[in-house]
Amino acid sequence: MRVLVTGGAGFLGPHVVAALEEAGHEVVVFDQREPLRKNTFVRGDLTRLQDVQTAARDVDAICHLGGVGDVYLAFEQPFTAAAANVMGTANVMEAARRNNVAKVVYASTWEVYGEPKYQPIDEDHPCRPDHPYNITKLGGEQILLAYDRLKGVPAVALRLGTAYGRGMRPNAVFSIFVRNAMRGDPIAIKGTGAQSRQFTHTSDIARAFVRALESPVRGQVFNIVSQEEISIRRLAEMVSARFPTRIVFEEARAGDVPPARISAQKAERVLEWKATTSFSDGLADLMESYVESRQAQ
Amino acid sequence: MRVLVTGGAGFLGPHVVAALEEAGHEVVVFDQREPLRKNTFVRGDLTRLQDVQTAARDVDAICHLGGVGDVYLAFEQPFTAAAANVMGTANVMEAARRNNVAKVVYASTWEVYGEPKYQPIDEDHPCRPDHPYNITKLGGEQILLAYDRLKGVPAVALRLGTAYGRGMRPNAVFSIFVRNAMRGDPIAIKGTGAQSRQFTHTSDIARAFVRALESPVRGQVFNIVSQEEISIRRLAEMVSARFPTRIVFEEARAGDVPPARISAQKAERVLEWKATTSFSDGLADLMESYVESRQAQ
Repeated sequence: MRVLVTGGAGFLGPHVVAALEEAGHEVVVFDQREPLRKNTFVRGDLTRLQDVQTAARDVDAICHLGGVGDVYLAFEQPFTAAAANVMGTANVMEAARRNNVAKVVYASTWEVYGEPKYQPIDEDHPCRPDHPYNITKLGGEQILLAYDRLKGVPAVALRLGTAYGRGMRPNAVFSIFVRNAMRGDPIAIKGTGAQSRQFTHTSDIARAFVRALESPVRGQVFNIVSQEEISIRRLAEMVSARFPTRIVFEEARAGDVPPARISAQKAERVLEWKATTSFSDGLADLMESYVESRQAQ
Repeated sequence: MRVLVTGGAGFLGPHVVAALEEAGHEVVVFDQREPLRKNTFVRGDLTRLQDVQTAARDVDAICHLGGVGDVYLAFEQPFTAAAANVMGTANVMEAARRNNVAKVVYASTWEVYGEPKYQPIDEDHPCRPDHPYNITKLGGEQILLAYDRLKGVPAVALRLGTAYGRGMRPNAVFSIFVRNAMRGDPIAIKGTGAQSRQFTHTSDIARAFVRALESPVRGQVFNIVSQEEISIRRLAEMVSARFPTRIVFEEARAGDVPPARISAQKAERVLEWKATTSFSDGLADLMESYVESRQAQ
């Protein structure tokens, strides 16, 4: 298939591009900036329907990862997150409809659930998002599914666990921890560090996109979340074991999402997907990438 | 107080403007088109932060009714609804924050709940919106409440019942029924007409905005819905009793929201608001307005 990957030059995008190519698909990258790897590339802005429509011409499917994925930017500029994540997704779906695209797979987030009513959280759990990031990601997801139901554009939403892996944003907690530790500066934990996350490796997430794309399933959401739970404190300890440094504790940040146990049973049952990268392997590879890029400087 | 009314030239806006003025407030209207009544008026586009920020300068409060309120337009152009209703509301809240506005009251809708899990539906009922209209109205509501919680901008969302009253859009079911009946054309009901709605009169809705504005309550949502239930068929019969004509039945429309019983007890308890206009009085007044405008032609 010829697959358009929006946000293909971002953090997750290149991993999805690589997995699609490995599975034999042809990829077109849509982004505001050029990808590092050589791909067929269309530069454009998700908030302009015309840009997306041009990019979606002659593609069979779309993996829609574009938008504001940086929760801190979403907090500072909710209007920017609303434009990119909600209107942007509506534009992608409208372009998909006009171009008769056979399938759209959307990068949503486990954070759409908000405060847990029960755990583990499955896909039937109510969504009460509480932060401009997850609010706008859910808005995009709902528009996507409305296009599937009301306008016949087959679509699937993947509610991704907190992603980690090579190419992370410099302001991601992983990047900050590793960068500080490599310099010998202390690792600063916001809050107690007891809150755990089901960190999900980029290679597992990328594989889920390929599965969802190739599967006949549509009009559905799936939790794509590793079942391993790692506390922020444990992450800090693992980083400081590799790059010895001190761990300090700072005040918690407003709007941070409390932990919740997320089930990925539906993805395992329907998509035959589950996370296979252990956290210690994934983190070791990520730390190695920082060493490599330091050596390359 | 000096109150900015976004969408002040729309259907509900002028009713809210009149109620605010009657309560002694000074009103500034923000809209893309000029209001019919004489008001301080700022022309602008909700999707442009700069426009909203200019309009919000020196106001004490905002009644935010602007956006895509036409469900059929939202269905045809989800991207337009996303821009106006989600990004537009984010712009209003950002402008409110930058201008230290003391209160924002938002026009949300009972349609945000989606399929009922229990009835009557109170404000704790989960929201599963399913149509570009209610999806984007909920997105706006959630952004509004996130600004209240995370950024200290006091805000209240009113989940309005299906509004009716003078000045309705020409494509509203009321307008179509009355216009057809006055011409002697049949009234066409989509589906069986058995589905009922808690039609809520513009005067009751306008009063709720004034109450919410003047009340110290913040960070809350309220159902602002009449407790009288009227089926579409009963509406058609009442119209044809005034303007004798036939009633015919047509195929149901995709995406129409099934009926649900909505409770307004919280608004009664906290805001001391309840609907006081009976449907027969409200409808008689609305039909009279069509007779008057025909006579004026």
